[in-house]
Amino acid sequence: MLGVVLRAARATRAASTKFPALDTFVRRHIGPGEKDVAEMLKVVGASSLTQLGDMIVPASIRKDTLSARAGKGEFELLQELKGIADQNKIARSLLGMGYADTITPTVILRNVVENPAWYTPYTPYQAEIAQGRLESLVNFQTMVTDLTGMDISNASLLDESTAAAEAMSMCFDNHEGTFFIDSNVHPQTIAVCKTRAEFLGIPIKVGNWQEVKGEEALCGVLVQYPNTLGAIEDYRALSAKVHQAQGLVVAATDLLALTKLTPPGEWGADVCVGTSQRFGVPLGYGGPHAAFLATRDQYKRKMPGRIIGISKDSRGERCYRIALQTREQHIRREKATSNICTAQALLANVSAMYAVYHGPAGLTEIATRVHDLAATFASGVKNAGFGVPAAASFFDTVTVDSTSPQKQEAVLAALAANNINVRVLSPTRVCVAFDEKSTGAEVDTLFKCFGVAGGSDSFASVNTAYPAGVGRTSAFLTHAVFNTFHSETEMLRYIFYLASKDYGLQQGMIPLGSCTMKLNATTEMIPITWPGFNNLHPFAPISQAQGYQYLFKDLSEKLAEATGFHSVSLQPNSGAQGEYTGLAVIKKYLASIGQGHRNLCLIPASAHGTNPASAAVLGMQIVVVKSQSNGNIDFEDLVAKCETHKDNLAAIMITYPSTHGVFEDNVKDVVDTVHKYGGQVYMDGANLNAQLGLTSPGDIGADVCHLNLHKTFCIPHGGGGPGMGPIGVASHLAPFLPSHPVVASNTNPSAMLPVSAAPWGSASILPISWVYLHLMGSRGLVTATQMALLNANYMRKRLEGHYKVLFSGANGMCAHEFILDMRPITDATGIGAEDVAKRLQDYGFHAPTMSFPVPNTLMIEPTESEPKSELDRMVDALISIRHEISLIEQGKMDKVNNPLKNAPHTQDMVISSKWDKPYSVETAAFPTPRSRKYKVWPTVGRIDNAYGDRNLTCACPPLEVYF
Amino acid sequence: MLGVVLRAARATRAASTKFPALDTFVRRHIGPGEKDVAEMLKVVGASSLTQLGDMIVPASIRKDTLSARAGKGEFELLQELKGIADQNKIARSLLGMGYADTITPTVILRNVVENPAWYTPYTPYQAEIAQGRLESLVNFQTMVTDLTGMDISNASLLDESTAAAEAMSMCFDNHEGTFFIDSNVHPQTIAVCKTRAEFLGIPIKVGNWQEVKGEEALCGVLVQYPNTLGAIEDYRALSAKVHQAQGLVVAATDLLALTKLTPPGEWGADVCVGTSQRFGVPLGYGGPHAAFLATRDQYKRKMPGRIIGISKDSRGERCYRIALQTREQHIRREKATSNICTAQALLANVSAMYAVYHGPAGLTEIATRVHDLAATFASGVKNAGFGVPAAASFFDTVTVDSTSPQKQEAVLAALAANNINVRVLSPTRVCVAFDEKSTGAEVDTLFKCFGVAGGSDSFASVNTAYPAGVGRTSAFLTHAVFNTFHSETEMLRYIFYLASKDYGLQQGMIPLGSCTMKLNATTEMIPITWPGFNNLHPFAPISQAQGYQYLFKDLSEKLAEATGFHSVSLQPNSGAQGEYTGLAVIKKYLASIGQGHRNLCLIPASAHGTNPASAAVLGMQIVVVKSQSNGNIDFEDLVAKCETHKDNLAAIMITYPSTHGVFEDNVKDVVDTVHKYGGQVYMDGANLNAQLGLTSPGDIGADVCHLNLHKTFCIPHGGGGPGMGPIGVASHLAPFLPSHPVVASNTNPSAMLPVSAAPWGSASILPISWVYLHLMGSRGLVTATQMALLNANYMRKRLEGHYKVLFSGANGMCAHEFILDMRPITDATGIGAEDVAKRLQDYGFHAPTMSFPVPNTLMIEPTESEPKSELDRMVDALISIRHEISLIEQGKMDKVNNPLKNAPHTQDMVISSKWDKPYSVETAAFPTPRSRKYKVWPTVGRIDNAYGDRNLTCACPPLEVYF
Repeated sequence: MLGVVLRAARATRAASTKFPALDTFVRRHIGPGEKDVAEMLKVVGASSLTQLGDMIVPASIRKDTLSARAGKGEFELLQELKGIADQNKIARSLLGMGYADTITPTVILRNVVENPAWYTPYTPYQAEIAQGRLESLVNFQTMVTDLTGMDISNASLLDESTAAAEAMSMCFDNHEGTFFIDSNVHPQTIAVCKTRAEFLGIPIKVGNWQEVKGEEALCGVLVQYPNTLGAIEDYRALSAKVHQAQGLVVAATDLLALTKLTPPGEWGADVCVGTSQRFGVPLGYGGPHAAFLATRDQYKRKMPGRIIGISKDSRGERCYRIALQTREQHIRREKATSNICTAQALLANVSAMYAVYHGPAGLTEIATRVHDLAATFASGVKNAGFGVPAAASFFDTVTVDSTSPQKQEAVLAALAANNINVRVLSPTRVCVAFDEKSTGAEVDTLFKCFGVAGGSDSFASVNTAYPAGVGRTSAFLTHAVFNTFHSETEMLRYIFYLASKDYGLQQGMIPLGSCTMKLNATTEMIPITWPGFNNLHPFAPISQAQGYQYLFKDLSEKLAEATGFHSVSLQPNSGAQGEYTGLAVIKKYLASIGQGHRNLCLIPASAHGTNPASAAVLGMQIVVVKSQSNGNIDFEDLVAKCETHKDNLAAIMITYPSTHGVFEDNVKDVVDTVHKYGGQVYMDGANLNAQLGLTSPGDIGADVCHLNLHKTFCIPHGGGGPGMGPIGVASHLAPFLPSHPVVASNTNPSAMLPVSAAPWGSASILPISWVYLHLMGSRGLVTATQMALLNANYMRKRLEGHYKVLFSGANGMCAHEFILDMRPITDATGIGAEDVAKRLQDYGFHAPTMSFPVPNTLMIEPTESEPKSELDRMVDALISIRHEISLIEQGKMDKVNNPLKNAPHTQDMVISSKWDKPYSVETAAFPTPRSRKYKVWPTVGRIDNAYGDRNLTCACPPLEVYF
Repeated sequence: MLGVVLRAARATRAASTKFPALDTFVRRHIGPGEKDVAEMLKVVGASSLTQLGDMIVPASIRKDTLSARAGKGEFELLQELKGIADQNKIARSLLGMGYADTITPTVILRNVVENPAWYTPYTPYQAEIAQGRLESLVNFQTMVTDLTGMDISNASLLDESTAAAEAMSMCFDNHEGTFFIDSNVHPQTIAVCKTRAEFLGIPIKVGNWQEVKGEEALCGVLVQYPNTLGAIEDYRALSAKVHQAQGLVVAATDLLALTKLTPPGEWGADVCVGTSQRFGVPLGYGGPHAAFLATRDQYKRKMPGRIIGISKDSRGERCYRIALQTREQHIRREKATSNICTAQALLANVSAMYAVYHGPAGLTEIATRVHDLAATFASGVKNAGFGVPAAASFFDTVTVDSTSPQKQEAVLAALAANNINVRVLSPTRVCVAFDEKSTGAEVDTLFKCFGVAGGSDSFASVNTAYPAGVGRTSAFLTHAVFNTFHSETEMLRYIFYLASKDYGLQQGMIPLGSCTMKLNATTEMIPITWPGFNNLHPFAPISQAQGYQYLFKDLSEKLAEATGFHSVSLQPNSGAQGEYTGLAVIKKYLASIGQGHRNLCLIPASAHGTNPASAAVLGMQIVVVKSQSNGNIDFEDLVAKCETHKDNLAAIMITYPSTHGVFEDNVKDVVDTVHKYGGQVYMDGANLNAQLGLTSPGDIGADVCHLNLHKTFCIPHGGGGPGMGPIGVASHLAPFLPSHPVVASNTNPSAMLPVSAAPWGSASILPISWVYLHLMGSRGLVTATQMALLNANYMRKRLEGHYKVLFSGANGMCAHEFILDMRPITDATGIGAEDVAKRLQDYGFHAPTMSFPVPNTLMIEPTESEPKSELDRMVDALISIRHEISLIEQGKMDKVNNPLKNAPHTQDMVISSKWDKPYSVETAAFPTPRSRKYKVWPTVGRIDNAYGDRNLTCACPPLEVYF
């Protein structure tokens, strides 16, 4: 019983003190109250939560995996974490390298980043209730294409380095050959490209771009613009040569610099990548930030990542939705050339809002000031005898030749005393990079450190104009959306207007199977906007990041325990990145024991599309293992395939409980079999929330597993990202976990090259999971798992008589999610999963996962955070919809012109004198008494996806009445 | 031109640095852009903003009043303010005296306190678009009545001390006689009652409550329960005696203690007052907090302050609205017995949400722990030889007899070393008060300081139960709303559900004349939830509050300059309090020069009702000065009345520009005349925003003026409070500004007694105004004033041909607001101001001020923050409504069954198969294309106010489907 558990959790604390904190969290995180739990247990036929867990989790793997650890009170934990944050020493980091400090306009900080209406929604697959963030993401795309001079942009990628690696794959897919990387590309980007290239067999050459002759077999060339040392190079001739060799030119570039410089699209680049971090997104010790990849129209179908496009709805009105989904990895599976799955929607939206708020003039003003400050600095240090380039040859980063090691040492000592970090290139060279937070006073301080006489004002006459051919002449961000909302009142209203079109957890449940839309608690969210976590450059000396280092260590230990593994890497910054890293580590391990030829990956038919895509991106051969009719892995087929491929078997990727929502009984046999044949077992952590505390991947025998921190560990989905995908590994794999060329995140000599731009991925959201783990305590985590099972089985039980429930485990129970099969209903009535999904919008609900893992099904995952009342409302809605379907079956409603096929119904559809449907407006809009009381409206009718893909438009549409 | 001004503002900065901050604020605060301003100037017929100001402000008083001071960038200013906040040293204050530290649940902090949807709305006069906060305020009332055992509560008052003073007035109004105050009432409450009693001539006696015999001529007795020393006294016999003497018993009480103790309503109290601060509202160095006053049913019409009640709407559905408005000061004017005008709605909502989140069990748990900790502490120090009362005789506050001064000094030194403040009563007595943030560890530390052997756990066996007659036996908070939303998911949804029913500035303009609903910028709001400002007890040693003291001094200087006065008092915590204080200071001054007999106050007929109410509360005789037909003060009548009353003339209260929105040309003559006859001039600062920088009360010749910081200086209206009403005074009045019995806020020996419970009123919201003043700089403030004039005149000009505009100044111009006269329209069509106001809701707007200062008019004040596009939308809506009215005039629409009389239209009215109105649903719901795109819905139909007053219900209604 929950009450018993809660009391027990308190009793654990009472052992250490008579006065435990009262602001305990477990009861806040878990939806149903004590009485509800009792009722629900009765419905599902279990006597207690413990017994329920034991009924569902196979005895062969059932084990109490977590050591006793009491949960803490919310207030005391935040105090403790504040102390940890304070151990991070916030210096001014003028380090550059793709990370620049920035001022987040407070109206955006508070009303987007800190607003559940923006951070709790899911990826906008239900586009009719996601038009707000879709509009904002189109703003992001327009911002990127305008500034880069490209035709089309995605929205968005994980970081600049992985975006460059994605671009490399595009180039190679377009035309095989060497991928040439200029040595003045940021070092982390070179490293990430090397990681990716190695497994895909893409030949890489790193050198001076001027070496490129255009006669080699090239797939592409990657240059940084301006480059990592700050230099603005003229790549026009290079582009011509590369194109001659049928290669593509990839420019890693800087959006702020592009307000001043000729955009890459105008000098010949084919693909632009970069990060929008400096558009209002805090440094966050490396992330999350939104990267982008933009390209010319002709390559649009080769682009990775999510693209938002414009289409029309059932009323013929303009609307937004995700475009070209058929390109995406979960559809292409083993044919995928990228495994990118999530995006960085929340951060992309922040950057887009930053551009909307500042507009082209404001952005140019900021850029001009940054360049002026850099030029003033250069001018001053030149006066003091340092070597610097001309002002027209850099934007924000000045490489300074100190002329002697002694001189440089003195400068560095002075900088350290003034709490300023610069990039040291050699004993006689440093780079100083300026940003939006730089001031005249900062330059004055730098002058003192460099021994410059006079202050920044003494260099007022520096000529900072860019000459023709370097400076930008073309207009950008001319669309009204970037030229309207410049007062705070207007900006605030635009933010709220967009939010009013979207559905988030603050309104109701989002029962997406496999997505785990649990509570994103405020206390978990509060620390992420603390300066102590937010204002740290990822390449700051590790001595300045002791708070983070403590948190990483503690979090890693907790995650290792939760997964039953030896070590954890926090570097992968999405679930797909975790898969990629896990498989890469397996390959590194196999190579280390002389089994490098093993390159075959078994993947069950029911796997999420990202699994085969990840394996494909590692160049692995993929063999599918069949499913049985009950959805489980076909064990005979597995054995047969192991036998057939025993010489090449590298790994199997399994999801557990399965994507069918079932704890397969024989999982240990599967693991043992693969091991017997020399393979490693990769466990997809998507469903870890059903295991936590009751069993673990390590205990089941897996060798590696990624953890979707944005699922099991409460990082919000941000309307489509960020996520985090750390991996846990068994001890034999630990030496191979990724390191980083700038900051060694794994000091083992066997460490693989990095998979992310930042050493610890999206570090600044890790406090969310840390807070969750510490608020819950081990008992709380177990209870959460049990409650996730109870909530799912309660809904399943209530729906069983109305819909066909696909698959189940022992005792007829599901795990934390279950699947409703729409296929028999479609056969009888023509009504399918999509119709039910859209009709649920009329009922005020976000639909469950559609057609995954089985076409024409709905997969429901309520999570432990939903209260019984909400579960009941959702069940009642589904039953009511089933009743509507039965009216069609009985011929009482038309097969086509009915509330399901016409769903969702917008305000202007039902508030119309021309209403001509054979059912009432009340049926359309108020199918339940509650929808009359609290109606969450879809703002567009059902969207025509095919139309949008045929008529692809991915930038801001022509101005109408915008808002 | 705005652009010129903005550039000039930047140039001011450029003088000091070549690199001014770019995140300048003026352009963010002011709505219209440069191009808009040019267009608007053309419409109103002015060549520049400067010329516009000169056209409107009479030359006789026009003066550049502000010294040059550059505005600062948002980022740098927040950094600076952080440094100021850090100068406040946050100790643990176990001082009690009505202020207890508390934990604001983060879900409430972020989604209520920090959410513009909660903090920007106005007082819920347009109840159809305010049902969310009205429901929450009814929760507040229910919480208070349940806990106190009273029948009815208001929602809310300013602080406990003024609530007690209001209760005293109620008692005296009920039955004249002495008001007896127990000497163990909090000292600030005794002092505030004395202030109030002195002017009203209420005899006060302070003494031991046991002295009350019941034979005296008593109006009432005020006791504190538990008292200021922590003691729980049995007042049953006292109550009987007081009732026998026809007096009333007022209990100042503690809501948290009442979860454990017999409620005052059960032992005989007639009125309960107190603060709900410890229900989740931070200490904030004194406020803002929500106080309450609850009473028995028979006294409900004597209650001061706002009461929310239940009524029915045009559909017959339940709805909430402000009840019994005829009791309120602005209606009763000189007959008022209270001048309370605003409430502390935002804080009342926080407290109500705190009770909703914790529920009765959670609150009891918190109270039990507080008492257990206090009892453990008492038990320990008793062991160490200190004298303490029995555990059953106190709740959270323990009076400790140190037995010797030496012993106490040693304890105090140890406490200071441990950063703990306690209340020192005498050289041998201290009080230690525990609160929600107290822990076992804190008691351990106290034990060390008091020399107690052992830790808190060694006293686990202390009996903390209250005996019969002391302990509470009755149930409380049994209503569903307090027993449902206990998980964070449910709480979050409840908060957003309520917000979805309300209209705030985040959705559109709120053009309330005289209310100044300008931007409440995020950067202004961010500091108020910083711990450095929030966690300070108002009675902490002043050495711990140096950050606040600096801010007070700087803010006072800026406000003194803005008003042209010598000194400022920050103590009055509402505009009405400011009026009260200003008049009191005048009376004190007059008495000091031997003119104490002067007690007559002249008030123009057009004055806001609070003016005569304030004068009445000071026992002044009120004489009304006539208005001319053009709305101005009738100067001849003024002179005549001065002459008639020359011996008794104490003051005149004027509003400038007038409540008619006009700068009267002869204001200097008015001032001079009153001065000539020996009177002082009180200027109501409601319209200061039209003067700021162009003239000032001091320059006009006024002697005192209050400043509504929640109008001119950007403190948000919070859905009906908090406000702040500091006063500025000329030098001769400065000695009399209020001090405080605990912390001397004015050290002059002539200082009057306090008007508020806290020395500096609602200190924690003062950073809002401070940030505003520093972001804007002097040029920015002037621009804001000019733009307020421009926005108003632009709207006036566009509306002139459609509505009759009442009153205007020189050149036919209005000041910052103007009045549309509905009376001719009503005569012709029966359509009145209320119909237009409600119809505006259909158009997606909040109505202007209705029927003030002239019945059946609409007063529009757009403020400088509204963009031209919003002004145009509002004008277009009013013109469109005028067109609808003309259809009635022309007989094309029914006189009764028309969209205006039926307004507002709710979703279920227009989404109905039974629609039977003679106009279309589109006309009803989508009167403009924009309302189709972005519809803000009223959630109930037009409210029947009279029904609700006849059938008064002010507590949570019986449960239906709540949400």
